[in-house]
Amino acid sequence: MSTTPTTLIVGTGLVGTSVGLALQRAGVDVHLEDLDPLHAQAAESLGAGTTRAPRSNQELGLVVVAVPPRHVGPAVCEALATWPEAVVTDVGSVKVPALLAARERGIDLSRYVGSHPMAGSERSGPWAASADLFDGRAWAVTPHEGSAAEAVQVVRRLATDCGASVVQLSPVEHDAAVARVSHLPHLMSVLAAGALVGAPPQQLALAGQGLRDVTRVAAGDPGLWSEIVTANAEQVRLLLTDVRDRVDELLAGVQDTPEALAVALRRGVAGTRLVPGKHGAPTPDYTVVYVALPDRPGELARLFADAGESGVNIEDLRIDHDPARPVGLVEVVVAQRSAATLVGSLTDRGWSVNQ
Amino acid sequence: MSTTPTTLIVGTGLVGTSVGLALQRAGVDVHLEDLDPLHAQAAESLGAGTTRAPRSNQELGLVVVAVPPRHVGPAVCEALATWPEAVVTDVGSVKVPALLAARERGIDLSRYVGSHPMAGSERSGPWAASADLFDGRAWAVTPHEGSAAEAVQVVRRLATDCGASVVQLSPVEHDAAVARVSHLPHLMSVLAAGALVGAPPQQLALAGQGLRDVTRVAAGDPGLWSEIVTANAEQVRLLLTDVRDRVDELLAGVQDTPEALAVALRRGVAGTRLVPGKHGAPTPDYTVVYVALPDRPGELARLFADAGESGVNIEDLRIDHDPARPVGLVEVVVAQRSAATLVGSLTDRGWSVNQ
Repeated sequence: MSTTPTTLIVGTGLVGTSVGLALQRAGVDVHLEDLDPLHAQAAESLGAGTTRAPRSNQELGLVVVAVPPRHVGPAVCEALATWPEAVVTDVGSVKVPALLAARERGIDLSRYVGSHPMAGSERSGPWAASADLFDGRAWAVTPHEGSAAEAVQVVRRLATDCGASVVQLSPVEHDAAVARVSHLPHLMSVLAAGALVGAPPQQLALAGQGLRDVTRVAAGDPGLWSEIVTANAEQVRLLLTDVRDRVDELLAGVQDTPEALAVALRRGVAGTRLVPGKHGAPTPDYTVVYVALPDRPGELARLFADAGESGVNIEDLRIDHDPARPVGLVEVVVAQRSAATLVGSLTDRGWSVNQ
Repeated sequence: MSTTPTTLIVGTGLVGTSVGLALQRAGVDVHLEDLDPLHAQAAESLGAGTTRAPRSNQELGLVVVAVPPRHVGPAVCEALATWPEAVVTDVGSVKVPALLAARERGIDLSRYVGSHPMAGSERSGPWAASADLFDGRAWAVTPHEGSAAEAVQVVRRLATDCGASVVQLSPVEHDAAVARVSHLPHLMSVLAAGALVGAPPQQLALAGQGLRDVTRVAAGDPGLWSEIVTANAEQVRLLLTDVRDRVDELLAGVQDTPEALAVALRRGVAGTRLVPGKHGAPTPDYTVVYVALPDRPGELARLFADAGESGVNIEDLRIDHDPARPVGLVEVVVAQRSAATLVGSLTDRGWSVNQ
């Protein structure tokens, strides 16, 4: 099908402005609107589109509602009423409540198709936006039973024009999915991080990369996350109820039944194998090569220049900082079959390497 | 004080062999012993020391017990009896049970000082060992009330000779610390990962970096972790009991009291601020610069060579893979004050950058 039609973006925060930038990059005409005219002007000055209103109903093919979660339902209805020729989508993190709110109005929703780009930032506002925000990310497209097939196509095209990969699910499936892969993990991270509050400082001196990984997402904006989790209360409650039972199992296992503990731990291992690897393929056999890294500018450059010489494709990496000395440890993830090549190549070039 | 005295390592698995390699690197004489002679020979062939027995009691100043957790107590007692002149330490993950087991024998424990290097690997056996394993890591030294001051000094020196930073705590403080910064986060990761088991595959298509971070450590060996958590049952139980209460709070918050939910989320944010940053200093103001990265060998090298040209020190980074397209997103963490320099420098060199 053709490219995304001329689009109005309602709400020029981080996500709305980024959609504008990405669409402009794809050659789409974009109009911008925000309750706060300064935000809309900022988005315009960044190149996300024009704050001039569309000339006519016919000119506009798509409205993207990018307002805070609790305002999505009413804003979708308003867009459907104001632009009777346009497809309307939103980019909210939870899909069912907005759909139900819109249905309560009793209006025709065939031109409405929800969506949710799986991208964001710890920052907010149009100034934090980027044309690249969605590149390579998943973008959920969530038609309801009454969505017109052509409307679904328009929203799918919006996602791909923004550089994302479409994952199509029903609104209920979407909310169940994000409860499981995003909201519950967020809450588990919050529990692990929350348990650090009030700890004697000496205990934290033993913290390592594992703790940093588990607790990282818990730093997210509590106001926004409260709104998201509350909006998805039903799905989150189902999973949390199960978690409560599993905490009881762990408690019993720790005290009396090591085998029950082992079962829970093996279940966790099985879960990690389900987390998609690269390019949607099953996780291949990766291994980690450890490299000691002096903590000064340019050492990473030198390391990766040397690693590049080996011709090995680096799949992932992380830097684990020494809490007390000017040296870091880089964990380089490579395919099992490439590890020996990388180790040999880096060792030859004088790096302290350990597989 | 002088360097680590001639040392006997009992148990040449990953940690024992790595201690041998690190001590040999520091110029210390090392003897190796393992129930499995093949393991001891492998460690010797790797350069971790000699399998020849020490010539006399006087020759040996230190015994490092590096056997599986459940054997530590008896092995420490045996070492104290066999080598009446030597200081004895162990490298187990939990300190109180081994101490209690040793005390049950009613022998003099003044030459015993527990310790715990905060380093490991997903691999095991002497073949996975490395002289660099402890470089820059914390190494807990955990004297009991009866430990002789000189014995404590010998074990502290062992840690620093192996390249680690000493964190001295009592055995009880240590076990409480690892329960909080390692065992509980591990179990929270296990719960998040375990919740993925049985999920419709479509749900996992929405997984992102957050899920990968939270669940990474849950992939650890369930047999080993079961043993560790069971050994630290009392401390883990205290924290898990609190977690159960907090899950109940979350459940109530999700359903009825958003303010309670927000309190829990803010507690999580506060916890993340307690996780030590680099070099033990308080976490400074970091920011993330995002760079789009074609997924082929050499691109990381090119990126870091270009970043190196900017003179900016890279604090941390991670690669977020596109599940469906040959492009990755690199998140580069730099000091707030350096971000503009890096963005400008990379943009000038043709990179697609977003802060």
